[in-house]
Amino acid sequence: MDRRPPAEPGMPLDEVDTPSLIVDLDAFDANVAKMADLVSRADVRSRPHAKTHKCAVIARRQMDAGAIGVCCQKVSEAQALVDNGIDNVLISNQVVGSRKIDALVALARDARVGVCVDHPDNVDALARAAAAGDVSLNVLVEIDVGAHRCGVVPGPAAVRLASQVAEAANLHFEGLQSYQGRAQHLRTHAERQAAIGQAVAWTEETLEALDRAGLAAETVAGAGTGTFMLEAGSGVYNELQTGSYIFMDADYARNHNEDGTPFDTFAHSLFVYATVMSVPNDQIAVLDAGLKASSVDSGLPVLRDSDGGQYFGASDEHGKIDLSETNRRYALGEKVFLIPGHCDPTVNLYEDYVCIRGDTVEAIWPIVGRGAVY
Amino acid sequence: MDRRPPAEPGMPLDEVDTPSLIVDLDAFDANVAKMADLVSRADVRSRPHAKTHKCAVIARRQMDAGAIGVCCQKVSEAQALVDNGIDNVLISNQVVGSRKIDALVALARDARVGVCVDHPDNVDALARAAAAGDVSLNVLVEIDVGAHRCGVVPGPAAVRLASQVAEAANLHFEGLQSYQGRAQHLRTHAERQAAIGQAVAWTEETLEALDRAGLAAETVAGAGTGTFMLEAGSGVYNELQTGSYIFMDADYARNHNEDGTPFDTFAHSLFVYATVMSVPNDQIAVLDAGLKASSVDSGLPVLRDSDGGQYFGASDEHGKIDLSETNRRYALGEKVFLIPGHCDPTVNLYEDYVCIRGDTVEAIWPIVGRGAVY
Repeated sequence: MDRRPPAEPGMPLDEVDTPSLIVDLDAFDANVAKMADLVSRADVRSRPHAKTHKCAVIARRQMDAGAIGVCCQKVSEAQALVDNGIDNVLISNQVVGSRKIDALVALARDARVGVCVDHPDNVDALARAAAAGDVSLNVLVEIDVGAHRCGVVPGPAAVRLASQVAEAANLHFEGLQSYQGRAQHLRTHAERQAAIGQAVAWTEETLEALDRAGLAAETVAGAGTGTFMLEAGSGVYNELQTGSYIFMDADYARNHNEDGTPFDTFAHSLFVYATVMSVPNDQIAVLDAGLKASSVDSGLPVLRDSDGGQYFGASDEHGKIDLSETNRRYALGEKVFLIPGHCDPTVNLYEDYVCIRGDTVEAIWPIVGRGAVY
Repeated sequence: MDRRPPAEPGMPLDEVDTPSLIVDLDAFDANVAKMADLVSRADVRSRPHAKTHKCAVIARRQMDAGAIGVCCQKVSEAQALVDNGIDNVLISNQVVGSRKIDALVALARDARVGVCVDHPDNVDALARAAAAGDVSLNVLVEIDVGAHRCGVVPGPAAVRLASQVAEAANLHFEGLQSYQGRAQHLRTHAERQAAIGQAVAWTEETLEALDRAGLAAETVAGAGTGTFMLEAGSGVYNELQTGSYIFMDADYARNHNEDGTPFDTFAHSLFVYATVMSVPNDQIAVLDAGLKASSVDSGLPVLRDSDGGQYFGASDEHGKIDLSETNRRYALGEKVFLIPGHCDPTVNLYEDYVCIRGDTVEAIWPIVGRGAVY
């Protein structure tokens, strides 16, 4: 098929084909710089999450701004980045199954590779494969600090797993993965503070138990865009895994700061660009961007223009705009910006970012990890 | 990146990498044959919707079973199929914007191409481009028969647009697009019958108005998997655009037949294959298939094994199984089948179908139209 990107550098914005994924570089650059500044003042390391962007160009920019490397969620996603020059990757997730573990071991020949564990059988499998492949893997023991997804119970179970890792010749026990994913989208600061306070307490308890067992955790990793200042100031976490801050999405914009104002530390820099393809009557306009152009798992996309009407009724390749509450009317062929409800799965729909500065395309960045679910 | 498919022909099912998109060929073949039989008995044409599968191999099989061609929703999707040998494509949608229209005209040199319209400016743009490119485009006037998305009002507005098409030298007025998308997932037969009854009435009214204006509609197109027997028996529709019947999804399985039994004319043939990657406690198991492996817009995926527990809590790369209502427990590394909530956007996440017969991989079919949103 035609895999031409929807634009070329130098093209005026209004000629960009739709639906396409736009990065506003002024906002993006400011987000990267702001996170780098906040992290450096907190005296912690930054290892941003590349599951958000799946792009080696962005990973490189984050590392140029001070990040020590990136996180990935899958081995194939890490592979795509390492193949494109990124040399320090943590799989912030369990890697289960021989084909995946073999790929992880192969990757460790080309880059500094870390992985998380939460089961003794998985530690055994990693140890055998690392030995057979003659590589060393850095291993974080994941503890469940309230997300109730993967991870062992904080305390003794984590120490047992850490001991098993430490005893394996080709595994290096690096520390703890303590990500509280559920806390990220709690709307009030007080709720987020309580959730991270609990996560910090469980992490400290586990660190003390590790210490009593003679096991040193060099790394205590976690945090996301919704809570990272809490982890950064905890005195316990030393490596932050924020992802969405580079783009921001409509759902993160529904969080509140401590004073109740909207969470606006970072600006929206990622948009779905869409064309008005039908204007059947005065009540609605129809866009060429539906479920295959913007993920709706965390709510529908929102028009950037706050007077532009309300996006509703997404179907595979259509999205409707309700015009009943606005005087705005659209011409056939007009183009609009949508703020995705959730960045990460939206990015995973596209092959390229169309990066704009003002009203001109400055660059096309390939999304090398798109579809890298393995 | 590593674009290796997750399996090779001949591989045992349990070695297939996950998450991956599985087609059960016995069920798939039976669905294709059943639709072909039902359509041939109704004395209508079949033009299945390729937005469901985006795959030239499947389009070819549908045409080998009697379909006259396929529908696509986007020009780039049609391009991917034409590039892979499919020579008869209807874009069952409006094509707006010069880059897209130029691509449509180019496509008409390689295949029999049709397109829908609902606006006079768009008819003008298509007419100019078709003349400049020296091709002929087959045009259906879309009327809104209750879906309230694209389409003109049935009756005089449709006749005006049809006249404009008929007068354009390089456009051929072929007929009406009368798709009632909202009726497809109405749960009871009575609701669907009422909705399609109304659509048929509006379509007849428009056909009569066209006839009075001396305009002949060779084609009256529409229908989906939820309602096609109603359109087929209407005496008005003569071309059916069913898509999901080849795969079925969890949402279509919630429809009822006329006697109240579950809609089971077609069998589930599409699955997301996933690995249990964490078994943190007795209450849940965690799969490696989340929002980037299965679209959740029409509900979460459902475990094929009805005693397997309930999928809940999808995040980017994780899905949890609630075990509280079942005695089933999972081993780390065990693999399971999920029935996607909605086939079309789920297919759009993957590069390949892994086609199995029993417990063996028989073929890999590329999803050539994946990401073809332009």
